[in-house]
Amino acid sequence: MSDCVFCAIVAGSSPAHIVYEDDDILGFLDIRPVRPGHTLLIPKRHATNLAELSPDQGGKLFQAGQRVAAAQRASAIAADGVNLLVNDGRAAFQTVFHSHLHVVPRHDGDKLVLAKSLLIRRDNDLPGTAEILRSELQGS
Amino acid sequence: MSDCVFCAIVAGSSPAHIVYEDDDILGFLDIRPVRPGHTLLIPKRHATNLAELSPDQGGKLFQAGQRVAAAQRASAIAADGVNLLVNDGRAAFQTVFHSHLHVVPRHDGDKLVLAKSLLIRRDNDLPGTAEILRSELQGS
Ligand SMILES: [Zn+2]
Ligand SMILES: [Zn+2]
Repeated sequence: MSDCVFCAIVAGSSPAHIVYEDDDILGFLDIRPVRPGHTLLIPKRHATNLAELSPDQGGKLFQAGQRVAAAQRASAIAADGVNLLVNDGRAAFQTVFHSHLHVVPRHDGDKLVLAKSLLIRRDNDLPGTAEILRSELQGS
Repeated sequence: MSDCVFCAIVAGSSPAHIVYEDDDILGFLDIRPVRPGHTLLIPKRHATNLAELSPDQGGKLFQAGQRVAAAQRASAIAADGVNLLVNDGRAAFQTVFHSHLHVVPRHDGDKLVLAKSLLIRRDNDLPGTAEILRSELQGS
């Protein structure tokens, strides 16, 4: 999948703020975060959608999601809650066709309206945010 | 957790439109569906949140989500896409404190605004919808 932007990140030919990596899964900050710390987890092996994702890959993806969610709570991100989300298919708002799990930190009173948040996606310090999560995950 | 509504469903003491069951996971229709076919998957063993969910339980929960998503596409529900969602913590809109995975069928042009959908949650034929998914999952 030479034209897949997420495969390019896995291959190291496209930059990303990596926060998590194991043998099967890679995690990096969404460049259009719903909230600072918003992380995308992907299988390193290309899978367009949930149907192409093996159950083994799917299980590992979710387990990485649990770890990143815990880090978003325990680190300076100080999340009070977390949303895990997969958008599978264009009808479900999938925009990059390499299956991925969104891990979105939430805070009491953030009054986030998810639909609105699709328009307000910025983080003025992606490198700093990445370092916070990376440190937490390495220590855990 | 005698006061947990989802544990009561697992115990059989509270009714539900069951669509999926294996040794570890139970799936039933959300009684306030975002879209008809909206299914909740839960670990049978009580876990309040993602932190209490073992990685093994988490992996199985997501794998069941993949199966139900496939059934929502393949069955008469005829989903064009699917959202998988975990709301972990009150700040992330968790309302029942037994961790669960939402599996929401989507259709091209359904113009679903997720925030709005929290207000429009009805299905006039829960038993019929449950049967559609149950049949698909038993055949798969
Ligand atoms: Zn790819
Ligand atoms: Zn329970």
